Parts: sequence; C-alpha cells; structure tokens
Amino acid sequence: MKLNIAVLPGDGIGPEVTNQSIKVLNAIAEKFNHQFTYKHALMGAIAIDETGEPLPQKTLDICLDSDAILFGAIGDPKYDNNPNAKVRPEQGLLALRKALNLYTNIRPVKAYDALLDKSPLKEQIIKGADMVIYRELTSGIYFGKKYLSEDGTKASDDCAYTEEEISRITHEAFKAAEKRNNKVTLVDKANVLETSRLWRKVVSNIAKEYPSVELDFLFVDNAAMQMILNPKQFDVILTENMFGDIISDEASVIGGSIGLLASASTGNDKALFEPIHGSYPQAKGKGIANPIASILSSAMLLDHFGLTEEADVIREASEKSIELGICTPDLIPNSTYTTTNVGEFIEEYI
Amino acid sequence: MKLNIAVLPGDGIGPEVTNQSIKVLNAIAEKFNHQFTYKHALMGAIAIDETGEPLPQKTLDICLDSDAILFGAIGDPKYDNNPNAKVRPEQGLLALRKALNLYTNIRPVKAYDALLDKSPLKEQIIKGADMVIYRELTSGIYFGKKYLSEDGTKASDDCAYTEEEISRITHEAFKAAEKRNNKVTLVDKANVLETSRLWRKVVSNIAKEYPSVELDFLFVDNAAMQMILNPKQFDVILTENMFGDIISDEASVIGGSIGLLASASTGNDKALFEPIHGSYPQAKGKGIANPIASILSSAMLLDHFGLTEEADVIREASEKSIELGICTPDLIPNSTYTTTNVGEFIEEYI
Ligand SMILES: CC(C)[C@H](C(=O)O)[C@@H](O)C(=O)O
Ligand SMILES: CC(C)[C@H](C(=O)O)[C@@H](O)C(=O)O
Repeated sequence: MKLNIAVLPGDGIGPEVTNQSIKVLNAIAEKFNHQFTYKHALMGAIAIDETGEPLPQKTLDICLDSDAILFGAIGDPKYDNNPNAKVRPEQGLLALRKALNLYTNIRPVKAYDALLDKSPLKEQIIKGADMVIYRELTSGIYFGKKYLSEDGTKASDDCAYTEEEISRITHEAFKAAEKRNNKVTLVDKANVLETSRLWRKVVSNIAKEYPSVELDFLFVDNAAMQMILNPKQFDVILTENMFGDIISDEASVIGGSIGLLASASTGNDKALFEPIHGSYPQAKGKGIANPIASILSSAMLLDHFGLTEEADVIREASEKSIELGICTPDLIPNSTYTTTNVGEFIEEYI
Repeated sequence: MKLNIAVLPGDGIGPEVTNQSIKVLNAIAEKFNHQFTYKHALMGAIAIDETGEPLPQKTLDICLDSDAILFGAIGDPKYDNNPNAKVRPEQGLLALRKALNLYTNIRPVKAYDALLDKSPLKEQIIKGADMVIYRELTSGIYFGKKYLSEDGTKASDDCAYTEEEISRITHEAFKAAEKRNNKVTLVDKANVLETSRLWRKVVSNIAKEYPSVELDFLFVDNAAMQMILNPKQFDVILTENMFGDIISDEASVIGGSIGLLASASTGNDKALFEPIHGSYPQAKGKGIANPIASILSSAMLLDHFGLTEEADVIREASEKSIELGICTPDLIPNSTYTTTNVGEFIEEYI
C-alpha cells in the first residue's frame, strides 16, 4: 500500500516522539512491502514563531493532500499565562480539526498487566480495565461564539450542538461497541444543560438501531467519580467535546502512564493520529519522553487503512519493550533508556 | 446563640440523613446552651410531586427568613431520563442558589487515616491529602441562556462570567488559603475559553493583594489527571461552576467515601449546608445511607456562625464513630449499623 503521510511534529516533545514513530513506520513498510512517504509541516507554537500563524496555509495544504496525518503535540507555556496573546498554538490544532472535519476523537484506555503497579489506583480497581472514549471533536463550547466586552469585564463562550453533529459520532460509537462489549455510556449533564438533553434524545433514538448494544447514562460529575471507583464498568464512553477532554485525560492515569496512550481523530475522509500527552515542555530535548504513545498512534493509523496485521506487530513490539523494561523513566524510575533507545528497540524488533 | 434553621430534606436519602443532623444539632444545643429552631420545607422531586414546583414560594420564604439552611439531597431518576420533562428537581436547587445568591461553594476533601484502605487510590498517593475546593455556584453555563430550536434539532447553553462574579469568590478563596497552606490553584481552560482567560486575568490581579499566597494554574483536563496522580499538591482549588462540579466529585473519592463529604454554599448573607452525595434513590429507606456527610455539614453550619468549639465536637464525634467502626456499610462492608445507629452514636457521644 502507498500512504502519503503528513507529519506535524509540533511543540515540546512532539518532534522527538514523532521521529520514533517514523522509524517504526519505516520498519513496517520494509517488512510488509508498503510505501510510506512523509511530508513535514509546521504547526503550533513553532509555527507561530516561524510564520506568525499556528496553522499556516501551507501546513493545511499538505494535510489536505495527504492520506493521513501524524501529529506530535502542541502548546508552549509562554502563551498559556498571557491572557492577552492574540494567537495561541492551540488555535492551530482546533482549526485543523475543524478544517479536516475530524469530528470523532477515539481514545483507547487499557490497563497493561506489566504496569499495574505504576498506577495511582489499586490493582484490583484497574486490572482488566479496557475502554475506548469517543469524544466529539469539532463542536460544543470549543467552537462556539466567544465574546469579550470592550472594557474586558465580561466574557462568554457558547456551547451549541446540532442533531447532525451528535448523530454522526454516535453511529461510530455504537459500531465500535458492537465489535467490543456491546455497551455505550453517554456522559452528559442532562439535569442542567439543554445541549445534554439533546444528546440524550438523539443518542437514545439511534440506540434503537443497535439492539445488541446496551446504552446507559452518567452525569459527568458522577462519571468523574466512577472512572476512579470502577473503571471496569466502561466499554465505550460517548461524550461531547469538553467533557471528553476532561474524562479522557482523567482516564489516562488508569494505564499507569499517559506516555502510552494513543488517539485517532477521524472524519469522513481525513484522519489524524496523535499521542494524548501534551507537549511537556519541561522534558523537551532530554531524551526522557516516552515515544510509545506516538508509536501506538501510528498503529492506529495503520488500523485505519485496514493494515491490522501491521498494527498488531507494532502493538506487540511496544508491549515487548514494556515487558522487557526497555522503557523511559516515566515507567521505570532511573531507567537510562532514552526516547531513541525505545524507538530503536521497537524498530528492530519489527 | 439562637439559630433559626430552615430544613430542606429533599429527595432520596436526603430526609434520613438530615434527621440525624438534627439530632446532633440538638445535642449540641443542649450541651452548649444554644437555641436552635427548625422549619421544614419541601424542595426537589418531592416538591414537584406535591406542589408542581421544585422550589415552592413557601420554601423560598422560609429560607429567606432563616439564619441558615440545612439541605439534604435532590434528584429522582424518573426526571433524569425524560428529556421532555418541563420541570426538574435540580431546577429547585439552582433557583435556590441563585435566589439566595450563594455564589461560593466550599468543599473540603481530606483523606482520613482510618479509611485509607477504603480508597481506590493507593495509600501513598492520598495519605495526608487535605484540600478545599472553592467552586463558583451562581453563574457560568449552569445559568447561561439556554436554547432549543423549535424543531428540536439544535440546542445551546451559554457560559458567561463577569469580573465581579469572579472577583468575589476569588477573595474568599485567597482568604481561606491564608488560613491554610497559602496556595491557590486556579483550574480553567484558558487555552480555549474566553471565560477562562477572564478568570485568569481577574484572579492574577487579585492575587497581588495576597502576597503570602502562591497562585498557580492548571487546565481542567490536566487537573482531572493531577487529582489522581498527586492530590497532595492541592491546598485551595478555585474554579468556575461546571469545572468545580466535575473536579469536586472526582476529588470526593480520595477520602474513601463520598458519604463523608460536607459542603457549604455561602453568599453575602445566607448560607446553605449540604452533603455532597446526591439523593442515591436506590438506598432510600434502607437504613444504609451514611449520615456523616450531613452531620459534618451541620458542623460547617456552626463554624459559619463562629461556633468553632461546637463544630469541633461534632467532627471529633464523627471521627470517633469511624475509628470505632460504628459505620454504615459504605465504610465497613456487611456492617449492621444503620443510618440511625450512626446518628445516635454521634448524638450520645456529644
Ligand atoms: C490542546 C488542547 C486544545 C486539546 C483539547 O483540549 O482538545 C488537548 O487538551 C486535547 O485534549 O487534545
Ligand atoms: C444536582 C446538580 C444540579 C448539582 C450540581 O451539579 O450543581 C449537584 O451535582 C452538585 O454538585 O451540587
């Protein structure tokens, strides 16, 4: 298969982990006789620094022209604490999601047996936990009208949803549940929010088309509790943009390390793959960033194109590195294996 | 001291736990020679069932006429799963918060040594955790304009904040930090939301008036992670309404049981005290509801009127009941102590 991959390393540790993914993808290409080509482009704080814009037109063109996008991370503290910054790195990512219509964000979360003791949660709570979060990604309060009064004393953000926006991701979530454990949990705040009540209505109706799938509901505050009390109850979680942001980051600690969590953002034609950890600027250039989340995102990329066997090889190699303790210090304190060592182990194993 | 207390038992387990609080308050009144009088009023699903309204005018009048309000819990599943319900129990609570201008919700969270093994989190993660969450309670997306299109296919909720709304609770949070460990963490999503950027600006300015207090910032997604990874890092958390709802419920698992967590909602003149657990309808009438959260809310009520010694006696008695294992089954599986047994133990201990 020929795949034309746009590579957006982004900020902080983004470039170092993305580099390992490329090595691994190349190893797969060689082994399975595929042809992967890469085009690098700027995005995020680095794009602002070099071009003034977080998502330059050239980057967008490269993405539009690609089969898939491999993304690193975004964000720089110099923009976070400046409420007056006009341009922010995150705008680039939001604009890209919107421009490519990547409305479904998919985040698998799994407790690895070899890492049970790394989790802040007790082993009996997490052992066997295995869920996937479907987060709506191109609407809601992230993309609603924003307002700041001229004198700077009043601000607002609007959260809006349409039936259409809810329904397309809902079908994805139910299809995923059919291939997993036939359960969808809708996370919302229907006792307070009008948008949540629309979600409940639309999702309940669509559920009837998937009779084998059980649907249940959780208020987001309760979900934040249940995620810790009993994460094994979840199979597919379906939720709106902002709740998905919060709940999926919370869920990320279950696996023992956020350095292992991959994600896919898909739409009707394009798809983007990224580790869920952020740019982690404190770690930049130190060789301590865990490349596995990015590498597993590459596996999701291959899955997306039906290359399941290839994807499984990457997953197997990644688990092997964990089993053998060829890990960055987030997994094994004082480990001397670097980002590159881990990437190369996985590359060679393949 | 004379205190005129409005009692709103509400739904589910609300009445049973509130009854224990009243016993305990009476024991305090006797011991310390105070005069507490109570007026009961309807609120929530039970008020809808009996009067058609979740917050009847008569209830509001009793509250306005009182020195403080002791509240139970609200909510009934028969309203949750009906997206067409015109009146909801929760509206009563929201309307009451608004009518009494209870803009500051205070939720202390503490890991009790005797209960460390009850938590889903590992002992080394939670031992010593002790924080208080300041959640803005009368604005934000809960109270913003709501919209549902006539054909029912579009909905929206507006999240708005003013400088004034942010600044009044911010002062409360910083004053609390001065009496605790001098640290305030603002939880927001300033990389995406305009309202969050206003929070950051206002809070940063106010921080200058409290030079002994250190201020730091966390994005809400990261906060949801940090709450589990390292809850000991928090002293005072300050945040807007919706984020506070989610983060404080998440934090509630740290203590090992949500059945222990009290809260106060305060404004310029009125104050309301309630356990943070909900109505837990499945447990209603079974005698298994833990009354301690409600009893500790009564202690916060006494604190509010400067009756610190009295409040400390309640806290001591409650801790004693935990230490001695005179607990409901949420704390000790198969315990045969009922809600009333625990309430009476604390009453007699006093
Ligand atoms: C960087 C930020 C805008 C982004 C989000 O909140 O969507 C990130 O936290 C994520 O979850 O992908
Ligand atoms: C019942 C509901 C409206 C309420 C809220 O979300 O404010 C509750 O969850 C709480 O946190 O007090």
